[in-house]
Amino acid sequence: MTSSLTPFFQPKGVVVIGASTSPEKLGYGVARNLVASKYQGAIHFVSQKSGTLFERPIYTNLNEIPDPVDLAILIVPPNAIPETIEACSQRGIKAATIVTGGFREVGAEGAALEKQCVNTARKHGVRLLGPNCIGTLDTHLPLDTTFLQPPMPAPGNISFISHSGAFAAAIIDWAREQGFGFSQIVSLGNQADVNETDVLPEVAKDEHTRVIVLYMEGVSDGAKFVQAAREVTKHKPVIALKVGRFESGQKAAASHTGALAGSEAAFDAAFAKAGVLRADTAEQMFDWARALEDCPLPRGKRMAILTNAGGPGVIAADSLETNGLLLSQLTESTLQALSSYLPPSASVHNPVDMLASASPEAYATCLKTLLQDENVDGVLVILPPPPMFKTEDVAKKVIEVIGNSDKPVVIALMGSTLVEEANKVFQRAHVPTYPFPERAASALGVLAKRKEYLDRRPQTVDRTVHRPSSTVNDDLITSYGITTTPIKLARDENKAATIAKELGFPVVMKIASSDILHKSDIGGVLLNIKTEEEVKGGYALLIERAHKAMLHAKIDGVHIQRQIPEGQEVIVGAVRDPLFGALMMFGSGGIEVEGLKDVAFALAPLNQAEAQEMIRKTWAGRKLKGFRSIPPVDEESVIDVLIKLSLLAYEHPEVEEIEINPLRVLQKGAVAVDVRMRIKGE
Amino acid sequence: MTSSLTPFFQPKGVVVIGASTSPEKLGYGVARNLVASKYQGAIHFVSQKSGTLFERPIYTNLNEIPDPVDLAILIVPPNAIPETIEACSQRGIKAATIVTGGFREVGAEGAALEKQCVNTARKHGVRLLGPNCIGTLDTHLPLDTTFLQPPMPAPGNISFISHSGAFAAAIIDWAREQGFGFSQIVSLGNQADVNETDVLPEVAKDEHTRVIVLYMEGVSDGAKFVQAAREVTKHKPVIALKVGRFESGQKAAASHTGALAGSEAAFDAAFAKAGVLRADTAEQMFDWARALEDCPLPRGKRMAILTNAGGPGVIAADSLETNGLLLSQLTESTLQALSSYLPPSASVHNPVDMLASASPEAYATCLKTLLQDENVDGVLVILPPPPMFKTEDVAKKVIEVIGNSDKPVVIALMGSTLVEEANKVFQRAHVPTYPFPERAASALGVLAKRKEYLDRRPQTVDRTVHRPSSTVNDDLITSYGITTTPIKLARDENKAATIAKELGFPVVMKIASSDILHKSDIGGVLLNIKTEEEVKGGYALLIERAHKAMLHAKIDGVHIQRQIPEGQEVIVGAVRDPLFGALMMFGSGGIEVEGLKDVAFALAPLNQAEAQEMIRKTWAGRKLKGFRSIPPVDEESVIDVLIKLSLLAYEHPEVEEIEINPLRVLQKGAVAVDVRMRIKGE
Repeated sequence: MTSSLTPFFQPKGVVVIGASTSPEKLGYGVARNLVASKYQGAIHFVSQKSGTLFERPIYTNLNEIPDPVDLAILIVPPNAIPETIEACSQRGIKAATIVTGGFREVGAEGAALEKQCVNTARKHGVRLLGPNCIGTLDTHLPLDTTFLQPPMPAPGNISFISHSGAFAAAIIDWAREQGFGFSQIVSLGNQADVNETDVLPEVAKDEHTRVIVLYMEGVSDGAKFVQAAREVTKHKPVIALKVGRFESGQKAAASHTGALAGSEAAFDAAFAKAGVLRADTAEQMFDWARALEDCPLPRGKRMAILTNAGGPGVIAADSLETNGLLLSQLTESTLQALSSYLPPSASVHNPVDMLASASPEAYATCLKTLLQDENVDGVLVILPPPPMFKTEDVAKKVIEVIGNSDKPVVIALMGSTLVEEANKVFQRAHVPTYPFPERAASALGVLAKRKEYLDRRPQTVDRTVHRPSSTVNDDLITSYGITTTPIKLARDENKAATIAKELGFPVVMKIASSDILHKSDIGGVLLNIKTEEEVKGGYALLIERAHKAMLHAKIDGVHIQRQIPEGQEVIVGAVRDPLFGALMMFGSGGIEVEGLKDVAFALAPLNQAEAQEMIRKTWAGRKLKGFRSIPPVDEESVIDVLIKLSLLAYEHPEVEEIEINPLRVLQKGAVAVDVRMRIKGE
Repeated sequence: MTSSLTPFFQPKGVVVIGASTSPEKLGYGVARNLVASKYQGAIHFVSQKSGTLFERPIYTNLNEIPDPVDLAILIVPPNAIPETIEACSQRGIKAATIVTGGFREVGAEGAALEKQCVNTARKHGVRLLGPNCIGTLDTHLPLDTTFLQPPMPAPGNISFISHSGAFAAAIIDWAREQGFGFSQIVSLGNQADVNETDVLPEVAKDEHTRVIVLYMEGVSDGAKFVQAAREVTKHKPVIALKVGRFESGQKAAASHTGALAGSEAAFDAAFAKAGVLRADTAEQMFDWARALEDCPLPRGKRMAILTNAGGPGVIAADSLETNGLLLSQLTESTLQALSSYLPPSASVHNPVDMLASASPEAYATCLKTLLQDENVDGVLVILPPPPMFKTEDVAKKVIEVIGNSDKPVVIALMGSTLVEEANKVFQRAHVPTYPFPERAASALGVLAKRKEYLDRRPQTVDRTVHRPSSTVNDDLITSYGITTTPIKLARDENKAATIAKELGFPVVMKIASSDILHKSDIGGVLLNIKTEEEVKGGYALLIERAHKAMLHAKIDGVHIQRQIPEGQEVIVGAVRDPLFGALMMFGSGGIEVEGLKDVAFALAPLNQAEAQEMIRKTWAGRKLKGFRSIPPVDEESVIDVLIKLSLLAYEHPEVEEIEINPLRVLQKGAVAVDVRMRIKGE
């Protein structure tokens, strides 16, 4: 399936506009790389001065170059870019990568020029990558439109989309030493036109791409990104390093939800919704990518450790737990097999410690035994240089076993010069190695996370399910089926009885008078009123007490509210994130929510699984099931309110913030005791 | 100052007992390394078979070897070790490193043999390192008693003490490629005699050691370790990687304090008390060690970032904040100097982005400007390969500036082949480099942490301050000056009035009868009783109500308790940790403490600073100052109770657990509402 972006990824012919014969110019670098990449399509050069470059003619006029040509790489001065875009269009080229810098990134004048480029491009139907980018690269096609120093990265199955060209360049150099390659690399630059959300599905189409990593400094359109990424992650894992975590100042907000929901919470929620794995550091992003590139996914979280030394085994065991994994309980038959094979002083229980004397055969035999154990979902092999054997001999034996298993195996290959050969053996066999057990465990962890996501991948909530006709008003929340406790005013005893019957017994009655401040002090509050008769009597009593307490008090009547039984109190809220739209919040009630930050966020609309996850993540949610002397309450009703409120927030973009605080959760059902809402423009 | 351990570190002569001429034997490796290390003392070999090895005679009898000799390396079979220890003693050798394995680590029989070795050694006054260890190494002396494959590590200023020989061996190999060296390395093996606490002060004496890193799988004597480490950290930083975090099953406990205080909380508290920096991963431990080895400490936490690319600058800014550091606000004069030097599109605000065109001179000039800024305590320089210059040329310019400053500078040197030469330049100049900004920021973070520790290094609480004569009883807690609210029983109205007067008004009165369960329901609780007359009247009223409610109820009288005003409730507790002794806990009160885990721990006895830190770490503590509608209470009184309870726990080892839950903190003062205590053996 082709799109307007196809020429960036599979051009039939490429023209470098601004090609140069001076080796210190970027226009030379791009020409050199394009030729050196062994790109199979047509390569053309255009410059102000004619001549030859890499045995090809340099044209001075774009219209002179022969077919085929459908992608232009622009390295002309910023002011010449708009006219060049127009010229491209006239030549039938509808895709241009602008390497040139000096646009939005240098101030207002540059921004105006950038705008002009976009306008020109839109007018002529040309798509732009950049400006101020280092272009694209495909190791398999092959194609290299960058000016980076050769050689090109090794071919691999990781694709990399980056908001920073410098970061991409440094990673390419670093990856060489780490021993991994890439499939496609895209530098996005200023994203005047094409952005990360446009590129992601295009890169996902590449058959050589097994994992996509994203370096993100922001997102162009949050909702579109989530939708696009969610589609991609169905088939291929996506890892993101999102930076700028601390930049966004907290905006003024009218509710707890608003105050607590920073842009980072929204990004986390968006990645969760989209199935994007969020890495903490650059190194971790590529540690994960290598595992996802090369390993099958584990069936579950139960991992075995195989080691020839106790210390690193303990580090690994700690790290598995840190990464949400479990130490497998090995089966009896595995224990017996290991016992009969290993020396008596070895430890056959997980972590399996074969002792320093372990041979290549011992590694292979024990690994095979572990992989055959039904209680083992994956194995972390620890391999410091064995004192009596060559590390590479262990590697050779071990890769055979790994190749014959459908379970993931990662290697903590500890050392450097003594394990160098072994590392090459593993690299050639596509078995990921890490210099320390902690990083190997993190890699196993991401495999399990990916598996969990695919298993639990929630059904998208049908976005047309429920569109009530009501506009935003006091009944909005009840129109979504959320139970509230309205307070109603009765002006006589008969009306009071009718209202109470409507609300349902028991009720609470309170004298309604703005003159009487401390109602309890004068006996102005009656609890647990159970019948219409009692309501009538109560009405008279309250009026009498009020008059007695303050002769000239202005009395409006009596407020009546359904009396809600004891229960647990939580907060449920939604806030409109400027990037991602309605963001749901769930957590502990009361003032303390802000101090404790016992809250979880997720993007609306929520489905059952997502609502459950919010509950599981918080103490407020976990104790709904009861804890010590706290009795259990109706967790299902909270899930129900979360889902309904998420629909409300999703379907009413004019609601800026809405918060039920508290939602009282009862043995059966849940009641919104207090609801606050802020509407756009109010 | 010499000790019984001095021969391990500065032997006058070393004998290898079990030296071998077969290159595949450990006894050969040790002999080879000892000779190859260029050790300047006497080197002797002993074996069952005479001969020569490395141009030295092999003796068959220990008594034949000439002076000097004061350290023996034993590589004889396990069963021969006890007699060899005895023979060493007879030859006047009082220090032996036992390389041989096959002791405690292989089971009960081995453990018995190990015990026998220790007994023999103790009897003859011989100190033992090991068994089952890889010995010691000193790159400066020099001395190498290990059998590891040559070459020895490069000389450096980091010393490394390890509970795992395999881990040490892998690290030595890894460090070579990382480009850092060591001063001393000690492998402790089974620690039959000499342990980590013995070795730590010995290694700290080494003049070449600037940083000590500890790989720990446990601690031999917690209290001694804290004392020894606390002494060492006064002068030299100590970093620990403590593993086995998840191994310790939670023991049954009678209080929240007991339930929450796992062995990891105790280790954290012990490291905090001792000033030991705890690393999360092996890689982090050495990242930190290199910074502490080579950098001056920063005066504060305000860091500047200097970069030639925006993306990595943003990563660095995020990471500084993650590591508890601040982005410096550059002074006006710095901003002006940078503005006048850099191109207009560069960003002169922190992070300072010089753009991709930055030359070596630009790096040097801007770094110098930043280091001269009084608002800058340190600089993180980001150096991906500059497109137009050689990275090593930047390195050469930059190291001159760094050498002339007393502020720390760390380098995020991104890439590999393109930065290889630059890395060597930095290594020679002892400027620490890291492949990613995140790791560089973590290194700056540990420098600030170390500085903070030295600045705030708390005065040790005088351990003889307060030793009350009272034994453990109900008055124990009040004998330490902690206010409680005793409940007293009055059997007639006059007694009631006397008790109330003693306790202080207002009081609460409750009917005392085990027959009446729901006292409030029958009006059996009177609040806010303010005078003796009211007490007398109240007594009569309560008895009357009780009789009315239940004719034959057995009535003991009336319970009287001082009525405590409203306030905030917290938990203060202490539990006896088996390794480290009295461990203090502070946190949120109520049932929820276990769910929320809003608690902090510290080792008793506490001083003012440590008690304040516990308060600062928890939400329960932070809100003592007031939060939103929660009014402030007497924080000082909580500090006072923490310190007093810590003295109680420290001075009464028979108290297994003690917990004030809740401690009600008032506007003035704090009252222990409920106290529970468990005494040893009860």
